[in-house]
Formats: sequence, C-alpha cells, structure tokens
Amino acid sequence: MTTLTAPEVLTRCRALVRPALREAVGRLHPWVGEMAAYSFGWCEVGGTPADASGGKGVRQALAVLGAESAGAPAQAGVPAAVAVELVHVFSLLHDDVMDADATRRGRPTVWKAYGTGPAVLTGDALFALAVETLADSGAGAVRLLSTALRDLVRGQADDLLFATRPWRGPEQVGTQEYRVMAEGKTGALLGCAAALGALLGGAPPADVAALDRAGRHLGVAFQIVDDVLGIWGDPLVTGKPVHGDLRERKKTFPVLAALAAPTPAAARLTRLLASDADPEEVAALVEKCGGRAAALVEARRHMASAESVEALRPLLDHLLRRDL
Amino acid sequence: MTTLTAPEVLTRCRALVRPALREAVGRLHPWVGEMAAYSFGWCEVGGTPADASGGKGVRQALAVLGAESAGAPAQAGVPAAVAVELVHVFSLLHDDVMDADATRRGRPTVWKAYGTGPAVLTGDALFALAVETLADSGAGAVRLLSTALRDLVRGQADDLLFATRPWRGPEQVGTQEYRVMAEGKTGALLGCAAALGALLGGAPPADVAALDRAGRHLGVAFQIVDDVLGIWGDPLVTGKPVHGDLRERKKTFPVLAALAAPTPAAARLTRLLASDADPEEVAALVEKCGGRAAALVEARRHMASAESVEALRPLLDHLLRRDL
Repeated sequence: MTTLTAPEVLTRCRALVRPALREAVGRLHPWVGEMAAYSFGWCEVGGTPADASGGKGVRQALAVLGAESAGAPAQAGVPAAVAVELVHVFSLLHDDVMDADATRRGRPTVWKAYGTGPAVLTGDALFALAVETLADSGAGAVRLLSTALRDLVRGQADDLLFATRPWRGPEQVGTQEYRVMAEGKTGALLGCAAALGALLGGAPPADVAALDRAGRHLGVAFQIVDDVLGIWGDPLVTGKPVHGDLRERKKTFPVLAALAAPTPAAARLTRLLASDADPEEVAALVEKCGGRAAALVEARRHMASAESVEALRPLLDHLLRRDL
Repeated sequence: MTTLTAPEVLTRCRALVRPALREAVGRLHPWVGEMAAYSFGWCEVGGTPADASGGKGVRQALAVLGAESAGAPAQAGVPAAVAVELVHVFSLLHDDVMDADATRRGRPTVWKAYGTGPAVLTGDALFALAVETLADSGAGAVRLLSTALRDLVRGQADDLLFATRPWRGPEQVGTQEYRVMAEGKTGALLGCAAALGALLGGAPPADVAALDRAGRHLGVAFQIVDDVLGIWGDPLVTGKPVHGDLRERKKTFPVLAALAAPTPAAARLTRLLASDADPEEVAALVEKCGGRAAALVEARRHMASAESVEALRPLLDHLLRRDL
C-alpha cells in the first residue's frame, strides 16, 4: 500500500485533513472557535496565529488509512477524520476539566487559559460539530460515532471511579476492569476512526468491524504502554514528570497487575501505596511483584491483535513507541 | 385535534414518553445514570427513588404534537421526544456549571451535589445518548438535531459574552443581538423538538420547517417573558428571588430595550446599573424608560408568529404564563 514511514504517514494525513478541519472549526462561534483553534495548536490565547503541537493526529490518520484499505481514495476518509479529531479534542477539553490538569502539550489547558465554563462550552461545540460533520454520511456513520461516544464516556466514568476505590479487597480494581476502561477511554475512538474511514470508503461490514476491533486493541495496548512509560520511562523522552502517575497513586495497569496475586510482596505494596512512600521505592516493588512484566505481556497481546489488520500496520510500531 | 387543557397535554405526553426515556437513561453507566436520574427528578443523591420535579416536559410535548400534526400516532414522535429531553438536560447540567448556579428546581444542581467533573461527564453522556437515540431515524433527523445543538452552543456563548460587555457605547448589546442569542439558547431546541416530531411523523419538509420556526419564536417569546417575570413577577409565583436578574446585572431584554434609545433617562439608567443601586430603583427606571412595555410588545410579536402554526396552540398560552 505505502512505503512511507509512520511519521511520514502522519504528516501526509494531517496535510490532507487540515483544510477540512480548519473549515469546520471556522464555522464555530468566533470566541468558541478561538478556543478550539488554541486546542489544535493553531493560535495563542487572544488569537495570534501559532504553530504549536496539536498532537500527532493519529485518529485522523486511522480514518484515512481505513478509507484507503477499502480501495477508496484518501479523500473519502476526510469527513471521518474531521469528526474523530473534533471528538478527540472535545474529550481532551472535558477530561482536563475533570482531572483538573493544568497543562497539555506544554501549554496551559483551555480551562486554565479561558476558564472552566468556556472550556466546557467549547467541548460541547466540538462535539456538536462532529455530529454535524457526519450527519450527511448516513445512519451507519452516525451509529459508529455514537457508539464510540458512549464507550468513551463509560471509560471516563470508570476511570474517575477507579480513583475512589481501594487497592485491595472485594472492591479492588482488577486488570480486566482496567482493560474495559482503557478500551472505552482510548480504544473506542481509535477503533471508530479506522472503522468510519473504512465505512466511508465503501468497505463491507465485516472489514469495518475488524478495523473497529483492531483500533480498540491498539487503544488498550497504547494505554498500558503509556502506564509503563509513566513509571519507568525517561522523562526527557516522555515529556511527563518522573513517577507522576505513582505520585498521584493512579490505578495504572502495572500497579493493578502487581496487586492481582495475593502474595506477601503485594500486601507490602498495598501498605506502601497507602503511605506517602517514595515513588522510586513503589516503582521497584511494582516491578518486583511482576507488574511491569505483566503489563508488557498484556500490551504485546493487544498489539498482536491490532496487527492482524493489515491496514493499520504502517502506524502501529511507531505509536507504541511514543504518545498518541 | 384535542380538547385537553395544556397541563393535560403535558401530562399525557410525559406519560407517553417516560418509559422510553427511562429505558434510554437505564443504558448509561450506573453512576452516570444516577446523576441523570437525579436531574430528571427520579431519584435523590445516592439513588433513593424520588418524585421530584423534572420540569414540565415542554420539549417532549412539542415533539409529540409535531408527530400528531403530521397525522401520525403520538408514538411516532417518541424517539424525537427522548432525544430533545436528553439534550435539554445535558444543556441544563452544563449551563449550571458555566453559570455556577447552585440550585435548580428546588434542589442542588448536579455539579453542586456530585462535583463539577461528574456533572460535565453526565452532560456528555446525555448528549451522546441523544445522538444514539436518533441515529436510526435517518440523516434528516440527525441534521435537525445537530443544527439545534450548534445554535444552542452559539446562544450560550453569546449569553456568556454579554456579561463581559458594557451597558452603553459601540460594544453595547442590542436587542437584535439578544433575539439571536435567545433564539439559539432557548428557541433552537424548542423548534427542533416540534420539527423532529413532525419529521418522524412523516410531515412534508415545508411543515417541518414551519414548526422549527414556530418553536424558535416560542423560545424568544418565552425568554423575554421570563426576563419580565424576573424583574416584575411575584417571587411566590415565579419561584425566583425578587430582582435576582437585576441584582446580578444580567443583560435581559427589558434592560437592553430601556437602554436602546439615547435619552437622558437611559443615560441615568446606565449610571445606576454601574453603581450598586437598589434593584427596586433600577426596575422603576427600566420601566420608565419603556423597557417593560417594549419587552411585552416583542414577546407578543414572537408569540403571534409561533401561533401561526396550529399544532403548537394547545401549549402556547399556558407556556407563556409560566416556566418552560
């Protein structure tokens, strides 16, 4: 299909999709449109044009690759690409409000820069724009998008609730629950992107469904790799603070896997997590309990499932080495 | 068509729609579903069943009347009714976050009871559920809904920005801008409700469009009546604090109309509004400047336009006497 490297594929897709994305965002209320453009990295607060990072554009690339996998021209996937990018940024805006995150891609988050209310409103506007973008693409397209939205919200709800649950006991979060959460929160939109692209490209239902599943596996794999990098990755490469997730006592896959077996080491880990122990010490014990190894096995398993679909291969390897 | 009184029409429509609405909400994540049920008045915080006010259900009634106006059975309008009620509650949840309102219908708002993040998430879930509900109703239905959503967000954006603008000068808010804001914020979903019901009932495009326009006029009329009641209404009847809007220096239609003419009285009103003058005094001056009379004329004008569509008449009179 293509001999481009993954970064080249991403660049090609961003260039293809950008005019339609800009046109869609340009139809928003000007104030809301500025906040949206800020989120995409196109401007600074106040509207001065900028060329900040708007992310790699993985979802738009999946949509384009999905269309091409059906034998259609790349252009056929563009409405799908626009819709999923809009939904992605909507979810980032609202997640940043929910998680009270102050920075994203090296800049203040929208709620931090413009206020909580405006950030919520801009998310809503992007959500509505995504639906509008797909309204003319048929009932199947709208159904794919709304299923992804439902799973996205479910995943986010589970993730918020995980924080309130204990490390051990009948209420502890199991690795299977984590998988379901990650599939919803990260996988659903990746699957939707590829599937929507294929649908608009005229792919038969079985191929659309296979791409959806592959994207969901990719999402789980990515989320777990992200967890591993958040604990043992080089902050210079990941761009994240050292041990940030451990410091915040997040329920990441390696920690949950480490706690899954009822060993004395797991009991010690539970006590450490409940204390204000140094993250370095926690990380070492998670590794000793087999959390890191289990995470990598699990990530590879989902990666292999995702790779069973040829169309996504140009991106997979690259994606799992760095952020989506 | 019917000889029922407006409250009877509302009761009939709520009874017809409720099972489908409950079924849809029942498909949500349980935690999110509880917050949604709380918003509809079906339960208390914690999930204990309740029978609190979930509003009159004007939007669902418009959808049902719209379907019946096309000669279809009431049942044909139910998916439209469910979708617009979901969107309505989504917008209330997010508006309460944006406006930092602590109570609604005599109970704590969702963000107050459950937190800002969960309230934002529940709004998102209801929004997604509305799209899902209509996904199988065809591209025309999704398009009607997404247009209403776009206008709703625009209206809310304008309303938020009005607060930051001056009372007088080139940047002052004109009554025409107010109309556009109110049509978006309140009218778009009312129009969508009636139009969607008619569309699902098989009405020809011209009838669908006429119902959409009528609902939008109804929204503007309602918003202006609400403004008038907020200043001169009996708090025992309105359930609102006396002069609440004036105390918060909201840019309501009567005040904007009072300021529209460059008279000495309007200049005095501008000074009063910039001071911490007693709301009673402000209200008297708004009335003296013709703000109250202009508002009533304007409301009657939109009301007359709405009444040109026969299908909505059973509700109109009643609605403009009290809250939607």
